[in-house]
Amino acid sequence: MPANSTTAEIVAAMRSAQRIAVVAHVRPDGDAVGSVLGLALSLRALGKDVIAMLEDGVPANLAFLPGTDTVIQPGTEPLGIDLAIALDTATHERVGEKTKALLDAAPLLIDIDHHPANPGYGALNLIVPTEPATGQIIYDLLSGHGLPIDDAVRQNLFIAISTDTGSFQYSSTNARTHRIVAEMMDAGLDTARLAQLIYQSYPVRRLELMRDMLNHMEFRAEGRIVSWQLKQAVMDAAGMQPGDTEGLIDTLRMIDSVVACVIFEDIPGGKVRVSSRSKDSRLDVSAVCAQFGGGGHRMASGARMRGPIEAAADKFLQALEHEVRRID
Amino acid sequence: MPANSTTAEIVAAMRSAQRIAVVAHVRPDGDAVGSVLGLALSLRALGKDVIAMLEDGVPANLAFLPGTDTVIQPGTEPLGIDLAIALDTATHERVGEKTKALLDAAPLLIDIDHHPANPGYGALNLIVPTEPATGQIIYDLLSGHGLPIDDAVRQNLFIAISTDTGSFQYSSTNARTHRIVAEMMDAGLDTARLAQLIYQSYPVRRLELMRDMLNHMEFRAEGRIVSWQLKQAVMDAAGMQPGDTEGLIDTLRMIDSVVACVIFEDIPGGKVRVSSRSKDSRLDVSAVCAQFGGGGHRMASGARMRGPIEAAADKFLQALEHEVRRID
Ligand SMILES: [Mn+2]
Ligand SMILES: [Mn+2]
Repeated sequence: MPANSTTAEIVAAMRSAQRIAVVAHVRPDGDAVGSVLGLALSLRALGKDVIAMLEDGVPANLAFLPGTDTVIQPGTEPLGIDLAIALDTATHERVGEKTKALLDAAPLLIDIDHHPANPGYGALNLIVPTEPATGQIIYDLLSGHGLPIDDAVRQNLFIAISTDTGSFQYSSTNARTHRIVAEMMDAGLDTARLAQLIYQSYPVRRLELMRDMLNHMEFRAEGRIVSWQLKQAVMDAAGMQPGDTEGLIDTLRMIDSVVACVIFEDIPGGKVRVSSRSKDSRLDVSAVCAQFGGGGHRMASGARMRGPIEAAADKFLQALEHEVRRID
Repeated sequence: MPANSTTAEIVAAMRSAQRIAVVAHVRPDGDAVGSVLGLALSLRALGKDVIAMLEDGVPANLAFLPGTDTVIQPGTEPLGIDLAIALDTATHERVGEKTKALLDAAPLLIDIDHHPANPGYGALNLIVPTEPATGQIIYDLLSGHGLPIDDAVRQNLFIAISTDTGSFQYSSTNARTHRIVAEMMDAGLDTARLAQLIYQSYPVRRLELMRDMLNHMEFRAEGRIVSWQLKQAVMDAAGMQPGDTEGLIDTLRMIDSVVACVIFEDIPGGKVRVSSRSKDSRLDVSAVCAQFGGGGHRMASGARMRGPIEAAADKFLQALEHEVRRID
């Protein structure tokens, strides 16, 4: 990994640019959307012409964030930018195919991220794996260099930080995380309203999915593995939309006997998306996912398998059970 | 409400006492248990002889907290104390009948709480309704006056604060809340471990209760009210234990159409416990609970009604629907 640039170099590059694209990874989560908009709104307040672009747009559960109406999806027209900034995106390809094609024309690329696997694919890089969220890196960058921070910027960066720390519960959360939120509250940010919008306003169809999960979850390996198959018919009946299943796996993770949980989900093309979580640091679910062409982190990993879903689940769970029994 | 005592007066009373009982309310939650043990462990470190007493003992989901093995339930033997301290308990009676009988012999009673309805029933009172948790008041009391704070004290006070703020999501959370957690983390507290123990390790029987809730929840007033009746037969089948239902109502609160949610629960003596939540500041659920002899906060309130549960639910929901339609 190349050495990080200084934050001064990165801010200088932002200040000298005129037309800037800010992007993040495909299937964007709260940290991706919040970081892109937090930075984009600050740079706009600085007088820059900023394109906030996400390959897959903004998921419905994050549409409440200020500035989401200005997020565009990539077209084919060149962007005419003099700077591209990729946020929260571990590999350059993860910005999405169309987005990457447009960014390739930019004379300068900045890569800001907290994923430890990020190789530093920018001309300037700021990879800080000790931070729980890219939004936290952005906040410290803006506040450290006196870039504009208003309530809309705070809202976006708060959501980035809050979602990537599981509401301050994950081990990545640090003391600075809490101090940033305190600073934001001092400045008037209504964090309770944001928490309500992000954590406490699910469509009823999400509870229908959860109901199906609780009615059909399956245990094996003496309760140490729990899994659920989310089938197309259930998604259709519930009218499922992107974002609806986000965090459902955490409900399975909470079961005290469980060391590994898996959700299998029908996706287009007769394929199955596998999402797996480990609760025991000795159990590496990414190794199991790798057996099926997937990967990720030790404790959270995914794969795509050929359907039908029952057969995929059977194969994956056998491999997983083998690993679970090894840590006995 | 009598004026608050100064924290200096309260700390002086603690310092001059030798044998101290620290108690909290019946059916103790995280703030009750965490505040009692946080203060008790600090006073023990100061050399005091401290009785940590809870009428109903420590619920299973909080048993991981350091010091819970020293918590006793009230007997009939006099305590021989020279100071009693009631924490997080809005009325003197709420410490429980047996506990109250034992406390009545104490020459001095201190009442520390954050419930706005607390009348200040102690000889010394510290009622701070702007704080999100009694645990936060205790932390500031200890740190402000140099009383002992070690990791065990921090663990208890962190759980008190984290649970009473819904992991920093409720509107009662303030900037000081986050700064306290940052201080605790600076001192080495492993908040992620505690969050995992309190939020991410539910017995499977809790998911069985959640499943029953999702299968039997009922909507009315165009989806603005959702309710669930937790019946004795379901509790028996799941092998329910105290603490298992804690937070279940939040899952109902999350539904975006909902402005009020209610759980009715069979309790001994043919009675029904009502727990209600409002999501709209114009809707005061404590006013509805007051119609049935209950009370609490505007946004979170409870009552006890005569069974059978179906009839109680019907009466309560009619009154609630009347209030919900008034805010249209
Ligand atoms: Mn992230
Ligand atoms: Mn409390």
